[in-house]
Amino acid sequence: MSAVETFRALHHGRSPADPLVLPGPWDAASARVFEEAGFPALATPSAGVAASLGYEDGRTPAEEMFAAVARIVRSVSVPVSADIEGGYGMAPKELVERLLATGAVGCNLEESEPADSGSGAGAAAGAGAGGRAGTGLKDAARHADWLAEVRAVAGEEVVLNARIDTFIRGAADPVGEAIERARLYVDAGADCVYPIGAPAEVLPRLRAGIEGPVNVGAPPGGPSLREWGELGATRITFGPGLQRRATAALREIADQLR
Amino acid sequence: MSAVETFRALHHGRSPADPLVLPGPWDAASARVFEEAGFPALATPSAGVAASLGYEDGRTPAEEMFAAVARIVRSVSVPVSADIEGGYGMAPKELVERLLATGAVGCNLEESEPADSGSGAGAAAGAGAGGRAGTGLKDAARHADWLAEVRAVAGEEVVLNARIDTFIRGAADPVGEAIERARLYVDAGADCVYPIGAPAEVLPRLRAGIEGPVNVGAPPGGPSLREWGELGATRITFGPGLQRRATAALREIADQLR
Repeated sequence: MSAVETFRALHHGRSPADPLVLPGPWDAASARVFEEAGFPALATPSAGVAASLGYEDGRTPAEEMFAAVARIVRSVSVPVSADIEGGYGMAPKELVERLLATGAVGCNLEESEPADSGSGAGAAAGAGAGGRAGTGLKDAARHADWLAEVRAVAGEEVVLNARIDTFIRGAADPVGEAIERARLYVDAGADCVYPIGAPAEVLPRLRAGIEGPVNVGAPPGGPSLREWGELGATRITFGPGLQRRATAALREIADQLR
Repeated sequence: MSAVETFRALHHGRSPADPLVLPGPWDAASARVFEEAGFPALATPSAGVAASLGYEDGRTPAEEMFAAVARIVRSVSVPVSADIEGGYGMAPKELVERLLATGAVGCNLEESEPADSGSGAGAAAGAGAGGRAGTGLKDAARHADWLAEVRAVAGEEVVLNARIDTFIRGAADPVGEAIERARLYVDAGADCVYPIGAPAEVLPRLRAGIEGPVNVGAPPGGPSLREWGELGATRITFGPGLQRRATAALREIADQLR
């Protein structure tokens, strides 16, 4: 099987007690650690890569993000998915070409503007029909059309993980809107949807309402990975959580040196 | 004072119990941790940066090394020195221009070929008059001339740390040769010399024989930083040691996830 076939297959036929766990590397060294620990694939977190490069999350220039992803892909032999945020304003064709040029076989795509523009121009721009005024969420139907364009360009070469931001953007009915958005995005060709920030207690409702793989972001101190799986998670990621834990460990090392 | 003046001044007037301790960041996140821990300056390790970028030590393309250094400099407000290995075959003028373009105010320069070429072409090339056949060490007088050219181009804008490789390259009399090489390099304008791999027990002899600041690489489990200072170290660095400790900490985090 090709890397993309392998990666896509990892999303299917799993038992609830054994969800797909994808740690998020931010550089080649961390990617190698996660590969050596036995994880079958990796998924870069935009915020972790941004921290390693010295940018605020959402502020990494596309050029530097793609270069960082390429360094990570080059350093491991397992499939790598890349968080490429909102797509950097690129047309689907350029976006997919740039993604595939890194060697990545999957990507996360967001449906809202970066948080720091959510109360400003981004929020206003997102407040069209079906968008939530003030939340920064994009119009769902228009976003689905865009995802369908990405899928059309990518064919089967990219495992598409569509982020759903109703929980982190204060939607009025985050569960119901997430299920509705998931339907649109799966119809548009998404392999997996990612209702970021969904708390454990709503996961069974999301699972029941969503067709196909569901990505869950596991915060520190929450349910175990197995518990997340049994609640309905197909795929578990950690956002920048592992980069932050590593940074905390380094802080201890630095304090010991002083 | 300018950043380079601040950084140079940190090398002088210190008590033996208070050596200059420069942790080695490999990316922006690690640089910020070290700055926040209170270190007054930082010095990048080539091997640590290489690991983060996914290269073997000594194999990082110049372009990527300078870009990584620039990201580190941009992320902190303390002075940063950069390990730029053997200078990437650049003429002194280009090398200094590229270094200063990153914002770094100091650099390490090596006097031998990368280890993996030490027994091959590099060793043969280094075996001129004053070089040690088979060790990969460069001819000391020629290397001093090159350092003098770097100094002439850089003026006072770069704190020059000249590495001395007699201990890691199996010189017949590593202490005596280090002292002789140090004299040539200090005369050529080096601000500091760095007899990498010098064990603690020879440091008092090196200290007595070398004029000006001496950089010591502190391995894990050796003397305390204060002890290194009292033995004669002006400046203490860790090579890739801190990157490796952080990687070990991440390995534990990854194993816990599994």
